[in-house]
Amino acid sequence: MKIAIDAMGGDFAPENIVKGVNLAKKELTNVTFQLYGDKAQIEEYLEDEQNVEIIETTEVIDFHDDPVAVIKSKKDSSLVRAVTAVKKGEADAVLSAGSTGALLTAGLMLVKRIKQVSRPALMSTLPTLDGRGFDMLDLGANTENTAQHLVDFAILGAYYAENVRGITQPRVALISNGAEESKGSPAVKEAHALLSAMTEINFIGNIESRDILEGSADVVVADGFTGNAILKSIEGTMSGVFKLIKSTIKNGSLKTKIGGALVAPALASLKDLAGSGGGAAFVGLKAPVVKAHGNSGAEEIAQALRQVHKMVDSDVSGKLVNHFENMNK
Amino acid sequence: MKIAIDAMGGDFAPENIVKGVNLAKKELTNVTFQLYGDKAQIEEYLEDEQNVEIIETTEVIDFHDDPVAVIKSKKDSSLVRAVTAVKKGEADAVLSAGSTGALLTAGLMLVKRIKQVSRPALMSTLPTLDGRGFDMLDLGANTENTAQHLVDFAILGAYYAENVRGITQPRVALISNGAEESKGSPAVKEAHALLSAMTEINFIGNIESRDILEGSADVVVADGFTGNAILKSIEGTMSGVFKLIKSTIKNGSLKTKIGGALVAPALASLKDLAGSGGGAAFVGLKAPVVKAHGNSGAEEIAQALRQVHKMVDSDVSGKLVNHFENMNK
Repeated sequence: MKIAIDAMGGDFAPENIVKGVNLAKKELTNVTFQLYGDKAQIEEYLEDEQNVEIIETTEVIDFHDDPVAVIKSKKDSSLVRAVTAVKKGEADAVLSAGSTGALLTAGLMLVKRIKQVSRPALMSTLPTLDGRGFDMLDLGANTENTAQHLVDFAILGAYYAENVRGITQPRVALISNGAEESKGSPAVKEAHALLSAMTEINFIGNIESRDILEGSADVVVADGFTGNAILKSIEGTMSGVFKLIKSTIKNGSLKTKIGGALVAPALASLKDLAGSGGGAAFVGLKAPVVKAHGNSGAEEIAQALRQVHKMVDSDVSGKLVNHFENMNK
Repeated sequence: MKIAIDAMGGDFAPENIVKGVNLAKKELTNVTFQLYGDKAQIEEYLEDEQNVEIIETTEVIDFHDDPVAVIKSKKDSSLVRAVTAVKKGEADAVLSAGSTGALLTAGLMLVKRIKQVSRPALMSTLPTLDGRGFDMLDLGANTENTAQHLVDFAILGAYYAENVRGITQPRVALISNGAEESKGSPAVKEAHALLSAMTEINFIGNIESRDILEGSADVVVADGFTGNAILKSIEGTMSGVFKLIKSTIKNGSLKTKIGGALVAPALASLKDLAGSGGGAAFVGLKAPVVKAHGNSGAEEIAQALRQVHKMVDSDVSGKLVNHFENMNK
């Protein structure tokens, strides 16, 4: 198995990317890690070259670049070259911690959409209170979605949960403003009816965003605008609550300060949980395209590589190609 | 000033409603509190009848009732009677902790929409880390909104923030999937352009839901579907984080347990903050219609009554009627 890696993408590239590869290649011994980027810089952090190929590239996409234009204007960038490797069949999947927009555009234009998938989507596995986690999509690849898009997201998410996360008959739910089937925008109500009629999906109905962290569903489907807003609300609230706790303890009585010092390690582990989701998969394409967080550490890159490995190993993209080809739309 | 109160609506009615009136009437001495409901039950909790009128009603709306049908089928319910009092000019505003759907329907059908307001919206003042708070709308009165609806929400929210909360030139922001003006659904992009061209609104551009709790804006505008999802995500995340902290402390080492006991009072005050927003105002109607949370305690009812008092006192609804009448749409 070959995984193409954009070694120059992300806030701490290539250091954290290469260090993540150092960690992952100890476990994933059947993988060839193709590192696209500046050879000299990559070698500085690489422990050894076993199962590693370094492919020299001369350009780097930064966050000021127009994400659509770079596909043509920066053809020798580490990101575009890594995605191109998948297109050419030289790699089975691609990982980048670089520009989300550029990766989505490159994925769509080079790896290409699965036939009959109306829209690809961005999906992450988010943590739940019971530790089981859930997959949520679309997190912002789209800004407007029809009922048919939502139905396709449900299929993409269910295949991922079953094949990559090993969940039998994953429970699929649809974000709405109430649990009753009468609730929702016209697109959500129509998607509800379509999903209810499908036998291949374990559709459990509508879910409110209040309940997703409780583990009430394995796959949570939303339009890209709403999904993006929900994800960022969860992030902002977690970060806000931790800041409040910190300042409450800091400005509190001596008793509170001592208590704060004693619970601090436990609270720190909670904060880790919030960021442990790994990469965001761009699903609905013919091969796995995964985005790691821009500020990923080495362990997060390794975690994203484990995820990519599972996606290739389970052939989830191939199974989705078959599913959609055999559908009578 | 006369405030009509649905004494029978809510999980702990009439007890908490009447106890809230007991608290509020000590401060708001120029208000007549009209309590609609079961006279005997109301009198059980009422401290004294000064500035209070009790209006006997025979029906109560419960959460199984169809919210649209009850306006006609339960005309003698405490909720419908209280809203009708505003319609007839017997009261200046109405407060209920009962069914949101029934209150929205009764407000729309009886109090009526301000002329030229395309859609009314549900708005709450939510807490920020700096204690200043922000107003967010629409929280779910609508499930789909056009650019014009969003523009009207911005005007409604800005008038409220300025007149009721006393904020000069409130900063108004639009929820989108990125801060840049190029981001958003077609409706959001169009609303962005319309708001940018308006001189009477201090429009500061797009905001991501991640940043709203930081106090980056005084008024946050979203379509009802997204606003509802954001509000419920914040609620669910807050409640989830507190549950996690509780179980981490409970299952932690002795050191963590002792620390937990010491910080518990400080953490409890944080939790209060999460629920201190008061009532949700149904804005865009000709008079104030406010919904208190179903499980409100006496202090929350008193807080909602202070809010209703300020809305009537500042004549925010009258000012909005004038604003929209004088607009050239």
